[in-house]
Amino acid sequence: MKLAIYGYGNIGRGVECAIGQNADAKLVGVFTRRAPESVQTLTGAPVYKAEDIDNHRDQIDVLILCGGSATDLPEMTPALARRFNVVDSFDTHARIPEHFANVDAAAKEGGHVALISGGWDPGMFSLNRLYASVILPEGKDYTFWGRGVSQGHSDAIRRIEGVKDARQYTVPIAEALDAVRGGSMPELSARQKHRRECYVVAEDGADKAAIERSVVTMPDYFDEYDTTVTFITQEEMERDHKELPHGGFVLRTGKTGLNKEHSHTIEYRLTLDSNPEFTAGVLIALARAADKLAKRGGKGCKTIFDVAPADLSPLSGGELRARLL
Amino acid sequence: MKLAIYGYGNIGRGVECAIGQNADAKLVGVFTRRAPESVQTLTGAPVYKAEDIDNHRDQIDVLILCGGSATDLPEMTPALARRFNVVDSFDTHARIPEHFANVDAAAKEGGHVALISGGWDPGMFSLNRLYASVILPEGKDYTFWGRGVSQGHSDAIRRIEGVKDARQYTVPIAEALDAVRGGSMPELSARQKHRRECYVVAEDGADKAAIERSVVTMPDYFDEYDTTVTFITQEEMERDHKELPHGGFVLRTGKTGLNKEHSHTIEYRLTLDSNPEFTAGVLIALARAADKLAKRGGKGCKTIFDVAPADLSPLSGGELRARLL
Repeated sequence: MKLAIYGYGNIGRGVECAIGQNADAKLVGVFTRRAPESVQTLTGAPVYKAEDIDNHRDQIDVLILCGGSATDLPEMTPALARRFNVVDSFDTHARIPEHFANVDAAAKEGGHVALISGGWDPGMFSLNRLYASVILPEGKDYTFWGRGVSQGHSDAIRRIEGVKDARQYTVPIAEALDAVRGGSMPELSARQKHRRECYVVAEDGADKAAIERSVVTMPDYFDEYDTTVTFITQEEMERDHKELPHGGFVLRTGKTGLNKEHSHTIEYRLTLDSNPEFTAGVLIALARAADKLAKRGGKGCKTIFDVAPADLSPLSGGELRARLL
Repeated sequence: MKLAIYGYGNIGRGVECAIGQNADAKLVGVFTRRAPESVQTLTGAPVYKAEDIDNHRDQIDVLILCGGSATDLPEMTPALARRFNVVDSFDTHARIPEHFANVDAAAKEGGHVALISGGWDPGMFSLNRLYASVILPEGKDYTFWGRGVSQGHSDAIRRIEGVKDARQYTVPIAEALDAVRGGSMPELSARQKHRRECYVVAEDGADKAAIERSVVTMPDYFDEYDTTVTFITQEEMERDHKELPHGGFVLRTGKTGLNKEHSHTIEYRLTLDSNPEFTAGVLIALARAADKLAKRGGKGCKTIFDVAPADLSPLSGGELRARLL
């Protein structure tokens, strides 16, 4: 399959690297809204102007959209799904139904397949919530995130006056995880599930006490959590916090038996050195499925819930049954 | 959907209980090769003679086959897939390709859908191997089973002269699991991954030392493992070992990045109080998918690899995207 990358940030670079690990995938090029000559790709892949993409329609089986969910993808995915098979990692959970409807209308109009919201949450975590819910219909779901960098929370700290740079780690609380695994189906508050570790570089002369107060009391982001703020130097930030690790846990515990006498726990856990590179791995697998679906005449918007697992793999049905079933 | 159970052992009873937890499922009855009047169901569901099943064809959307994999299902599934949509839990991994071919031919001839090898391994563990392999193409898979009762190993001990009853627990070795989670991709022998705990009731006057020797040296079953044999009384067996817990871990660790500088671990873990009841939960979800596929005109044999996750759920696509994605 011939793939192209549209948008060249962390996820775009991750996709570029991941294509080299998939023998059935070939990278046609990277499309960017920046000046192409200003962009140097990791693998030397060619860079083109985003606005010229229609000149490459014949060469692209699936376009992987690597824009941000806040403003890029809500416009980008419907617009491009009219002309290409596309995959995106739209991750604003509350707006997925609206995004789905917009992309579905556009993809059907253009006769293309669009697979949205690929990644790990939404994505693999969602899948695990679905599978667990159908196996254990009487049960309770828990999702824990971390230990990992939350870009949204880091950005929120950076907007505080006097802050030069910031990194926020979301940390799941071990006692809460253990309580869930024990099958007692506890009710857990936000504070009981996660704590938040913040590393902040302050501007010279900034009021650190005021910054700390602004962080820990920030509504929605920090006020419902136990939050620690540690001031560090720019050198420490660059040395110790340049990676984007993440991960987390999806658990469901449920009861079965005539009198609900048996308890079960399903746990899915990710430990990721690089959030964007793992997301890229999911996007490539979804691109493969989009390519297969399109070649079978499929049209419209779909999610990972609609994709038969076999369609994510380069192996045949017979190979999968013999090797992995 | 109207379901029927064919074969009434541990899994059949599990399916009977699970149907009560699924509002969209109705149990038509239990079909057995025993005398129906000798069988008392847990919920009072009606019992019919297996040979009379064709008289009930109009009332059954999907038939859940609950026979054993050694001799029952290889005959039963193809024979019944000619006349019904069926689901089975065939779990002899090495013979899946052959079973698939037989069932596929029969189901296509009869114009029905057959979903084979449902459960957790094969089943949910297989799915997790597939998903993990497509996301991290450069990596290594590990499957650990337990702590749980292996029926095959328990039966093997029961066949030894002087053994009245036996229960074998497969136990994953914590150090091996930790080594895998650490991302070092160790090569692990059978002995390094699992140990085997055996509880044996000896007949009066039996030679316990000889029994123990026969167990620990038994080829294929025990000789490649560290095995402990503990002799207990029949009362202790009934008091402490009447349940069928099981579970295990599927892990994949893999590398990403331009120079493979990032490591990732995907872990799926099951902790099950009742192996057959959990398996039953998977079979009901597969029956739902078989019913949907058949109503869309599908035909032939499929596995959980071929089923879009959304088809396992009673919720609509829109509900799934809003609640679980």
